[in-house]
Amino acid sequence: MRTLITKIKELHQTETSDTNSKPITRVAGKAMAEIPSIKDAWLVIENGLIQGFGSMAELPELTADEVIDASGRMVLPAWVDSHTHIVFAQPRDGEFTDRIKGVSYEEIARRGGGILNSATKLNEMDEDALYAQSLERLTAVMNQGTGAIEIKSGYGLTLEGEMKMLRVIRRLKENAPIPVKASFLAAHAYPAIYKNDKEGYIRLIIDEMLPRVAGEGLADYMDVFCEDGFFGIEETDRLLEAGWKYGLKPKIHANQLHYSGGVQTGVKHNALSVDHLECVGEAEIESLRHSSTMPVLLPGAAFFLGIQYQPARRIIDAGLPVCLATDYNPGSCPSGNVPLLLSIACTQLKMSPEEAINAVTVNGAAALELEHELGTIKTGKKANIIITNKIPSLAYIPYDYGNNPVYRLIC
Amino acid sequence: MRTLITKIKELHQTETSDTNSKPITRVAGKAMAEIPSIKDAWLVIENGLIQGFGSMAELPELTADEVIDASGRMVLPAWVDSHTHIVFAQPRDGEFTDRIKGVSYEEIARRGGGILNSATKLNEMDEDALYAQSLERLTAVMNQGTGAIEIKSGYGLTLEGEMKMLRVIRRLKENAPIPVKASFLAAHAYPAIYKNDKEGYIRLIIDEMLPRVAGEGLADYMDVFCEDGFFGIEETDRLLEAGWKYGLKPKIHANQLHYSGGVQTGVKHNALSVDHLECVGEAEIESLRHSSTMPVLLPGAAFFLGIQYQPARRIIDAGLPVCLATDYNPGSCPSGNVPLLLSIACTQLKMSPEEAINAVTVNGAAALELEHELGTIKTGKKANIIITNKIPSLAYIPYDYGNNPVYRLIC
Repeated sequence: MRTLITKIKELHQTETSDTNSKPITRVAGKAMAEIPSIKDAWLVIENGLIQGFGSMAELPELTADEVIDASGRMVLPAWVDSHTHIVFAQPRDGEFTDRIKGVSYEEIARRGGGILNSATKLNEMDEDALYAQSLERLTAVMNQGTGAIEIKSGYGLTLEGEMKMLRVIRRLKENAPIPVKASFLAAHAYPAIYKNDKEGYIRLIIDEMLPRVAGEGLADYMDVFCEDGFFGIEETDRLLEAGWKYGLKPKIHANQLHYSGGVQTGVKHNALSVDHLECVGEAEIESLRHSSTMPVLLPGAAFFLGIQYQPARRIIDAGLPVCLATDYNPGSCPSGNVPLLLSIACTQLKMSPEEAINAVTVNGAAALELEHELGTIKTGKKANIIITNKIPSLAYIPYDYGNNPVYRLIC
Repeated sequence: MRTLITKIKELHQTETSDTNSKPITRVAGKAMAEIPSIKDAWLVIENGLIQGFGSMAELPELTADEVIDASGRMVLPAWVDSHTHIVFAQPRDGEFTDRIKGVSYEEIARRGGGILNSATKLNEMDEDALYAQSLERLTAVMNQGTGAIEIKSGYGLTLEGEMKMLRVIRRLKENAPIPVKASFLAAHAYPAIYKNDKEGYIRLIIDEMLPRVAGEGLADYMDVFCEDGFFGIEETDRLLEAGWKYGLKPKIHANQLHYSGGVQTGVKHNALSVDHLECVGEAEIESLRHSSTMPVLLPGAAFFLGIQYQPARRIIDAGLPVCLATDYNPGSCPSGNVPLLLSIACTQLKMSPEEAINAVTVNGAAALELEHELGTIKTGKKANIIITNKIPSLAYIPYDYGNNPVYRLIC
């Protein structure tokens, strides 16, 4: 099966096929403002892989089973959403109203709402029903251009509940047309019965859950909600060390509410990424500078909670890469809409459209170790791409906020 | 033609049919937190009007040409978007990137970008093309639940350009299935050729444009961009007075960038509404308290520009009404998405979901003098309503941000 896309107005995020040139695996600092592009271009896909691309002026003679006329349309790599919690049982619209009336996220958690609320609902729900509605959410975000996704456990908080979530993620992996990665996040909150025995829950995770999860190959990564009042530095240290013993690379929640030292702990354990980062100062930047850990910002959650935004400019201006992800979850960000995330990143974090798009394509792929498979337009990579509606520029995607720029996702 | 909607999960914004009770024409202060509703309800529409509604337990025997099963769905009045500029020739995605890089909105205007940029493009565009793309935008916002809309001129800035815009709005009025109101906004910016002759432009508006616009019945309202550096208090005074002579009630832009006295000037001229209101203090509130002028907040523009949000809580807590509108325009808010506006109002302005919904239904209708026709569910009013997707609560609409809650708009 060969598909030819012709007359593409602009083909974005192109990499040269020259085998001597270094592959683009992540972009940082000033380079984030650049997106290599070809105007009036063609692209050929064969058996799901990019077989070639170039300028229409140099279109080779070839036969194709399908020809897509992309006049007026942009083609670019699909979004990689590297941080989500889309397997959940119920929305939490009730708590939303409480928060508006001034109850803090931490206070809601203390009242047994928040994550524990989601855990109760999830443990009550049948695995098939959970799968069906998670697949519905996945399909909805694919319609908005998401071409690869990470999904976390963490609403089980029991051995059986966590296993159920991870099995649902595995079914999504097997059945969804896009790459899915699973993170094990039992350390998301302390379940009510361990309220006065936090050590007991840590031991449950390390001694019972991890061997089962790893034994069944249910997780790609180890995640911890590292935060004052949740899992502190010492607990995070132990959990990440335990995860590594089973080959689970860390990908952690850090510095959402406090300068907790979470970023430094992630870097110390060679985390693939540290995610959230509302609270980032010089120490965090210094730590990231000497690492390959990807800083992942989740401004959709900051928007929804009405808290301070992440200092994206400061991180980029320090020469670091920035990745953006949605954090799609029922409590702090009930949206997996990446185009809207780009709008928030541009208008609130003052990222340029190019920086924001790099953050959810190349850098998104890097945050899921998919940088050699997708994230740029390169011969041999997966054809994991978006064809946009007819739009005047790449900047129009975040500019036209609240509307979906995606005409078609190819994956 | 009679339509019966049955098994409605919740019918919202209902008014009693008791002719002795006072009609709800606007809601203010604490009352904004309330939305009268009927659970498990029915509603009958005959020839476009609401003929009756009530609880399913008391469904009368009746025949209907169409029966809509609304199991799991909410029914509520359609959104009234009382402030838009949807007739424009081109998006301004280029300026978007400039602004992110730190160029101010005022600086872009000084460079001949901004409104003058839109005016150049509009004056070059053929009337039919302008109509066609404006209708496309109108259709798009109707799909997001907008059931009545106001549209402004103000990208002509010449007699002919303003007349062209207003004729396009009249065609939309004649052809769109929803009520459309037109505001005359020649006083949106000073055209380049009047840069050094501001008095000349004021005279052009008052002596030439107004008689033509009013003579052809092209406008319902008189609008002025009252702001330091644009049209000051004295100019606004003269323009509103001139508008009144032709029966054009004022509906003005006020206090977006400065404490300019615009609110007080609007109130003095008995404006139907004063819109924007990022800068509202005690003097503005005091002025509004003694008036029937509706404060209209445009947080979508504040979001997009990354400036301070309007103090909605302060206005509501002072016992005043609040209306929300999108400000859909190519420069400062390229989105007419009311569901997303509700999310911004709840998360950033800390309005409760009920307050936000009142602000775009009852109070939206009042800001367009449509409060006796639509804006609530009342026997005899227009059936201008939204049937939502299957959602758990009214709060879910702003909660589920970035997604469209509308299953069907009936108008």
